[in-house]
Amino acid sequence: MASKIVVNNYGSFDVTMVKGKGSTCYDINGKKYIDFLAGIAVNCLGHNFKPLVKAISKQAKKQIHVCNYFVSDIGVQYATELLGRTGFDAVYFGNSGAEGNEAAIKLARKYGYLNGGEKRRVIYTLESSFHGRTLATLTATGQDKFHPACFAPYVDCFKTIKANDWEAIKTAFDDTTAALLIECVQGEGGVNIVDAEWAKAAADAARKAGAIVMADEVQTGFGRTGTLLASEQLGFEPEVVSFAKGAAGGVPFGGILIRGKAADVFKAGDHQSTFGGNPLACAAGLVVLNELTKPGFLESVSEKGEYMRKAIAGFGAKCVGEIRGKGLMIGVDMIEPVNAVEVEKKLLAKGLLTSTAGKNTLRIVPPLNISYKEIDEGLSILKDVLLSE
Amino acid sequence: MASKIVVNNYGSFDVTMVKGKGSTCYDINGKKYIDFLAGIAVNCLGHNFKPLVKAISKQAKKQIHVCNYFVSDIGVQYATELLGRTGFDAVYFGNSGAEGNEAAIKLARKYGYLNGGEKRRVIYTLESSFHGRTLATLTATGQDKFHPACFAPYVDCFKTIKANDWEAIKTAFDDTTAALLIECVQGEGGVNIVDAEWAKAAADAARKAGAIVMADEVQTGFGRTGTLLASEQLGFEPEVVSFAKGAAGGVPFGGILIRGKAADVFKAGDHQSTFGGNPLACAAGLVVLNELTKPGFLESVSEKGEYMRKAIAGFGAKCVGEIRGKGLMIGVDMIEPVNAVEVEKKLLAKGLLTSTAGKNTLRIVPPLNISYKEIDEGLSILKDVLLSE
Repeated sequence: MASKIVVNNYGSFDVTMVKGKGSTCYDINGKKYIDFLAGIAVNCLGHNFKPLVKAISKQAKKQIHVCNYFVSDIGVQYATELLGRTGFDAVYFGNSGAEGNEAAIKLARKYGYLNGGEKRRVIYTLESSFHGRTLATLTATGQDKFHPACFAPYVDCFKTIKANDWEAIKTAFDDTTAALLIECVQGEGGVNIVDAEWAKAAADAARKAGAIVMADEVQTGFGRTGTLLASEQLGFEPEVVSFAKGAAGGVPFGGILIRGKAADVFKAGDHQSTFGGNPLACAAGLVVLNELTKPGFLESVSEKGEYMRKAIAGFGAKCVGEIRGKGLMIGVDMIEPVNAVEVEKKLLAKGLLTSTAGKNTLRIVPPLNISYKEIDEGLSILKDVLLSE
Repeated sequence: MASKIVVNNYGSFDVTMVKGKGSTCYDINGKKYIDFLAGIAVNCLGHNFKPLVKAISKQAKKQIHVCNYFVSDIGVQYATELLGRTGFDAVYFGNSGAEGNEAAIKLARKYGYLNGGEKRRVIYTLESSFHGRTLATLTATGQDKFHPACFAPYVDCFKTIKANDWEAIKTAFDDTTAALLIECVQGEGGVNIVDAEWAKAAADAARKAGAIVMADEVQTGFGRTGTLLASEQLGFEPEVVSFAKGAAGGVPFGGILIRGKAADVFKAGDHQSTFGGNPLACAAGLVVLNELTKPGFLESVSEKGEYMRKAIAGFGAKCVGEIRGKGLMIGVDMIEPVNAVEVEKKLLAKGLLTSTAGKNTLRIVPPLNISYKEIDEGLSILKDVLLSE
């Protein structure tokens, strides 16, 4: 099989995708799929979205890449709009969620150093979190299965705390804590939502100890949960927010938003990226930002999410346990012996793209502009499969 | 200034780039620049290169991103062509040079673990090397200035060895060595070329000790030095080659090529990237690969490089020291008190884009398809400035 030459790190399915339109994809055999996956929360405006295609084509002709010795007109325009819409003070651009979180980690380290010397180095993350696949973001990831002996030694000075554990935050943070990094909704961990009251209390406790608070919004950012950032709903006002996934509608993009006392930490030479903030990604990002902030768009994301969760609950399928989520980030627990991966495979065979997360959770993260027609078509396939389990 | 909102990690010049054509760029005031920089060796086919623009536009319409649960038609086509042209067995796709090197580091660690247990963890890199800005690739970077106390603690089990040091390779490697990572031409270090005989001897010594040998070709790969990979010229046959920069003509892209006993190290789940190998980058990568492998193209890169080095030597400028390079990767040492950064600024003012590297070296890395007309125009500006120093 031709796909074997791309290193088999994914246990990929034997499906060769060719094209898409809206929230519908087609494979090399012409088979049609309803897209409840969006390339893992990436294709936030679906496929062949005309304004996005037009912006990418136009920018590719003008200038694809400008290095960061200079700025580009579109880069400045995008950054200005992004900061205006989010209320942050500055932005750093990289190329992926891992690169966003690497930047956040380095910023937290330097903040700790400037505000407590060599002692203040510890970064707290949440149990069951996922922060990336580079060595440092892997270490930050609060799941032991991501720390096999073969990649050791990992990076020092990371600790975990359990989300929604009120007892833990009484004593966890002290003058060795540089930052608390909260993944607002744990995507890979099983679509687990952090309690807003706890997040605020944890942030308060961390700040009281002299640390900054950061949000990993790689998966939740850019409208996924029905607000531009999920941290807006949790209300803990992070000084740093990492983003990626849907930010440029599919073009590789990531980075961090920074504000307040965290905004002055990085100086010239501290952290860089060759491709980061390239005009092509910024042109695509501008379309995403404009679309997401159109009147009614984010509300429609919340409505569609609620519609889907209600519909799934209404199937009356015995294999369905808890249904969680915010906006169009939905987790449906499978009750054993029914296995989420097996369900995912059956859905794929019947023409519905989904994914799995956590222990035994079906994860649904469709394009944010999916039509109700496509939602209903996908739900119909989902109902058939879940009821037959 | 509007550009200040993008975190000032670059000490950027106050120039806002807007568009380009061939190896000529234009800023927001309509000022024209000859491009001897290519976005730091990224825009290998220059700007507004029609086949590249067409491929990106076409692919943006078909499908920008497919996650790695599946493959894409263009992804498989690109991977097949890439392996065919380079002779490697497998490829892993990420989004940048740092991500390529992170993958290489994790692969080396696992290779060491499988072939020597927890003891075999050390990765050797070269003094003066540069491998990236993530915490692990920063640690791998063999320059102390990249290891400030504010980002500590760094990652354990990295060591450095001096390039072209014959004595050092007699004793450096043992049963704790997982890999030797060689940057073929040190771009950021000052365009320093590793001696081919030494590289082969070092590789032999590392392999004799049970390690694998890897090449960082983030800057040298994809035709920059006049061969598809620079390691072809050095002849040490690395098991792993990291790449990025020009690979997709400006679209963010990176990864590693893998062969031999290194090709079976990564298993499903070991290492992943959300965006890695997306159809947009692969479509752009295919154009680059096709262009670079057209009869005569790589030879023309070598010829242009030699033409430029000879011309610069012929200026008779007193501030010019050693002129180094391979293909279109050229380093021109400035003799103190003349300062390379000041020269760079003067060239910028006169309409020539260059960069600096190492201690006091002017670095020239133009698009690989730069015309002789543009070369001559740029050299004329360079001559004026160097003779006036």
